[in-house]
Amino acid sequence: MNKGKLFVISGPSGSGKSTVICRLLKELDKAYFSISATTREPREGERDGVDYHFMKKEEFEKLVEADQLLEYAQFVGNYYGTPAAPVDEKLNAGYDVILDIETQGAEQILSKRPDAVSVFIFPPSFAVLEQRLRMRGTDSEDKIIGRLAQARVECKKAEMYNYIIINDRIETACNEVMAIITAEKCRTAERLHHLKEEN
Amino acid sequence: MNKGKLFVISGPSGSGKSTVICRLLKELDKAYFSISATTREPREGERDGVDYHFMKKEEFEKLVEADQLLEYAQFVGNYYGTPAAPVDEKLNAGYDVILDIETQGAEQILSKRPDAVSVFIFPPSFAVLEQRLRMRGTDSEDKIIGRLAQARVECKKAEMYNYIIINDRIETACNEVMAIITAEKCRTAERLHHLKEEN
Repeated sequence: MNKGKLFVISGPSGSGKSTVICRLLKELDKAYFSISATTREPREGERDGVDYHFMKKEEFEKLVEADQLLEYAQFVGNYYGTPAAPVDEKLNAGYDVILDIETQGAEQILSKRPDAVSVFIFPPSFAVLEQRLRMRGTDSEDKIIGRLAQARVECKKAEMYNYIIINDRIETACNEVMAIITAEKCRTAERLHHLKEEN
Repeated sequence: MNKGKLFVISGPSGSGKSTVICRLLKELDKAYFSISATTREPREGERDGVDYHFMKKEEFEKLVEADQLLEYAQFVGNYYGTPAAPVDEKLNAGYDVILDIETQGAEQILSKRPDAVSVFIFPPSFAVLEQRLRMRGTDSEDKIIGRLAQARVECKKAEMYNYIIINDRIETACNEVMAIITAEKCRTAERLHHLKEEN
């Protein structure tokens, strides 16, 4: 059976990344959206294995020690990370695995998995990004300013990604990410690998 | 203005390459199909600038000396090749340029233009290829045997291409090549180049 491919998708809050990922999961035959692990307490309504894999601190630290995380970080006293095992299990079962991750996590993953395909989703401009964040109406003024500052930092890291999507029209952006996934499966190294396995 | 991209497409006779190229030219916004130059005499019905650029031998040899051909070969006493000037003119005008070329010509082009994107179209199997060549009903038995032998030689060169398409269903093959072209325009190097030019 053909192994799946690992796709790392980053982009600031308001870039349309979540909408793009939703479309991918709907359209791809065999795709799996990787769920992060965390040591923080579940918030109301959050379900284990759906929103996060909730873990005890000791459990998480064992994964760190055994180098069984594709990436991890500490944030306000809690760990957040991507355990390698469920990702590899799905890849081996032929699923494409989609990772939604900020740039620092992406950097860690790409150094561990150089065969991963990375896509950075840009907002068309910072003015549009600000507009989108305000139109959501969910964030306080402070949070919007924080998100915009964070977006500027993240966008500077875009150079390390294989592909850049400029999400001006969401339909075009979704089609471009689908095209990237289709094209990556046609890469000669992939094809020759599969052709050899079939014989 | 954004420069176009150079796409080198190879594949044995019967691989469905021509159908794929037809679809590309129809679907792409700005695409130009590169026409070869030759020193052989035009056959009945062949038009200069449509089927080939017909040239005198001396004219062609001047291009060779001035290194103004992306590739060339001699075949039964005649020259065949791809002059660089019309290709570059179209690329600079923002057109994607599609080159339909056999593997030896492709090798020359890819060494001169490492930024070209190369696609090799495989028949699903040699049995299907033979069937397709026979069903055309245009070639003699000798010619079919020759084409099959040639196909085996060309398919061995597929490793040097960026992408491999296995043309099992022509619709899928066309979609895959379109996806490759879309994806290549999203490559980070391309995007950053264009973003810089816009500022």
